[in-house]
Amino acid sequence: MNVDGKEMRPIWFNTETRTVQVIDQRFLPHELIIEDLTTVDAVIHAIKEMYVRGAPLIGATGALGVYVSLVQDNNRGADDDYFKAECERLKAARPTAMNLFWGVDRVMDVAIKETDYDTRVKAALAEALEVVEEEAVNCRKIGEYGLSVIREIAEKKNGEPVNILTHCNAGWLACIEYGTATAPMYTAFDAGINIHVWVDETRPLNQGSRLTAWELGKHGISHTVITDNAGGHLMQHGMVDLVIVGTDRTTRAGDVANKIGTYLKALAAKDNNIPFYVALPSSTFDWDITDGVKDIPIEERDPDEIRYVQGLCDGKIRSVLVPPETSPAANHAFDVTPSRLVTGFITERGICEASEDAVMGLFPDKKKE
Amino acid sequence: MNVDGKEMRPIWFNTETRTVQVIDQRFLPHELIIEDLTTVDAVIHAIKEMYVRGAPLIGATGALGVYVSLVQDNNRGADDDYFKAECERLKAARPTAMNLFWGVDRVMDVAIKETDYDTRVKAALAEALEVVEEEAVNCRKIGEYGLSVIREIAEKKNGEPVNILTHCNAGWLACIEYGTATAPMYTAFDAGINIHVWVDETRPLNQGSRLTAWELGKHGISHTVITDNAGGHLMQHGMVDLVIVGTDRTTRAGDVANKIGTYLKALAAKDNNIPFYVALPSSTFDWDITDGVKDIPIEERDPDEIRYVQGLCDGKIRSVLVPPETSPAANHAFDVTPSRLVTGFITERGICEASEDAVMGLFPDKKKE
Repeated sequence: MNVDGKEMRPIWFNTETRTVQVIDQRFLPHELIIEDLTTVDAVIHAIKEMYVRGAPLIGATGALGVYVSLVQDNNRGADDDYFKAECERLKAARPTAMNLFWGVDRVMDVAIKETDYDTRVKAALAEALEVVEEEAVNCRKIGEYGLSVIREIAEKKNGEPVNILTHCNAGWLACIEYGTATAPMYTAFDAGINIHVWVDETRPLNQGSRLTAWELGKHGISHTVITDNAGGHLMQHGMVDLVIVGTDRTTRAGDVANKIGTYLKALAAKDNNIPFYVALPSSTFDWDITDGVKDIPIEERDPDEIRYVQGLCDGKIRSVLVPPETSPAANHAFDVTPSRLVTGFITERGICEASEDAVMGLFPDKKKE
Repeated sequence: MNVDGKEMRPIWFNTETRTVQVIDQRFLPHELIIEDLTTVDAVIHAIKEMYVRGAPLIGATGALGVYVSLVQDNNRGADDDYFKAECERLKAARPTAMNLFWGVDRVMDVAIKETDYDTRVKAALAEALEVVEEEAVNCRKIGEYGLSVIREIAEKKNGEPVNILTHCNAGWLACIEYGTATAPMYTAFDAGINIHVWVDETRPLNQGSRLTAWELGKHGISHTVITDNAGGHLMQHGMVDLVIVGTDRTTRAGDVANKIGTYLKALAAKDNNIPFYVALPSSTFDWDITDGVKDIPIEERDPDEIRYVQGLCDGKIRSVLVPPETSPAANHAFDVTPSRLVTGFITERGICEASEDAVMGLFPDKKKE
């Protein structure tokens, strides 16, 4: 995507240095820092510490991490047991995002079949890059399908802006291109539709105010940062036409794990009859489970992510302590929105209702045996 | 209330200096700063800039502000027109909290009857101090009535902690003593009931993590700071037994204006069958209106309160900029929770349902002519 005239993705394979490179998103919007990931430890660290985040990007990072596992450490990846163990370590980096397991398994399954080391390396890289490109294409398709939802509302608004609320960052920084939740926004904006985006700041790590606001601003899309508390009030007063969010894992029955706080916005959308869409590539579906509240593990992260807030002060990035030093905090990273609160899914194969029948109708190839 | 062994209130009349003094709450929990309010401008500034905040405390500050208007500026308060105009300025300091208008009018109505200047000053001070003491007594009674709600849950939990979620600070810092939402917590804790409080940090100004956590910590009450996004997830997983919040204005029909985000928690409580109580003295009821969403004006504050976050860094209080410098923000300070989502009101006269009939049953003296 376009950043000050330069095409940019959040992850790429640098063909000159032969390394995987990522944007370290922890310092956006104030600093744009690029990092090389040359070991599995570095890949895991980048996923855990959220240099990279967002379901599709975590999947792509996992996929390229499989390649890294083969070329680190004097080519030990020729050994199947070592290779598998490194892949398992990658999959354990974060517990909630489905795409991580999917991305790692997909590349590992292809590579493990190759017994010749050089062929294995080549196969892993090719498959990982295919994952990356496929996710970019999926996001473009999500944008095209989602456009119809925005266009329909725009037609009723007679040129007034379509007000879209989003939570966290399910933008291109979370994916490869376009984003998931943001893809329909970019497509609509590029098609000349008047849109305005309410950006939930998304505590504790402020991916909304730091990343979504940055992305949208760079693309010239009108947006306003709000606290996570504000969406209900805006909805009560007719200031939100549509909610679109991403997801870290969605069950085959349509329950949606996403950044903590998504469930609260879904409740408010339901209470005010506002359409609530979830945009996702099929790689984010967990085809094995149905009950999201019961079965999706919710990551608990370091309480200091809540206690300290990072931002720019006197030209430097600093962290400030907000609560009393002695007060504990709890940091559940995701929540689950039950399918009954979801208007529909926007996927690379089209739009469907949030029910097992509708999802399996769109993805019949994923039917259980 | 007890702060490190010293009895403290958020506002008081210093009989030695003959001045109104307040805690400047903007710097808590990291610095405890006391300010003199010797002019109406200073009182208005303290209310607007939130040295003092919370409905009952704003009411008490307005009440004492009427006294200040009489003794500032060479006793010009002897002039009725000047006196009334100064009182109107006080009432315009913030638009949502009912108690401000109530507190100012109550003291002004008493003082204006006195034509002798010295008698007027004495009458204003006496009435303002009576407002202060009455609100302290009201909060104590709210604590006693609210205790029954907590005790009933505690009896079912066999010694396990009663988990109470609260939003913003409706503690003694927002009142005079005990608080409104926190009064039942202090009373229950002092009665030996095992409680634990989930403290919503309450963006943008973090009154939860800065003030409620500080208060509860000083009193020794077990508490955990969470993001405003987290309550729904905790409720889904049985980790919240009860919600108690305060209010800035409540209609006679039971619609509740409170800190932005309260409505989202009420929706989640309803969705998970968790009791949702609002604690308030009668001074917070607006007896003239019924439809809160339509008729309660919602203050919009400086967007920089969202863009910048204040806390402690290297021993200094600093503010950090979180979103891109160029991204706008919108800062609606309150939202309205419809009465259908409220289990009950805890008042100084007892507990009642959130309906016009029940409220007027408890306060028959407030019936419209």
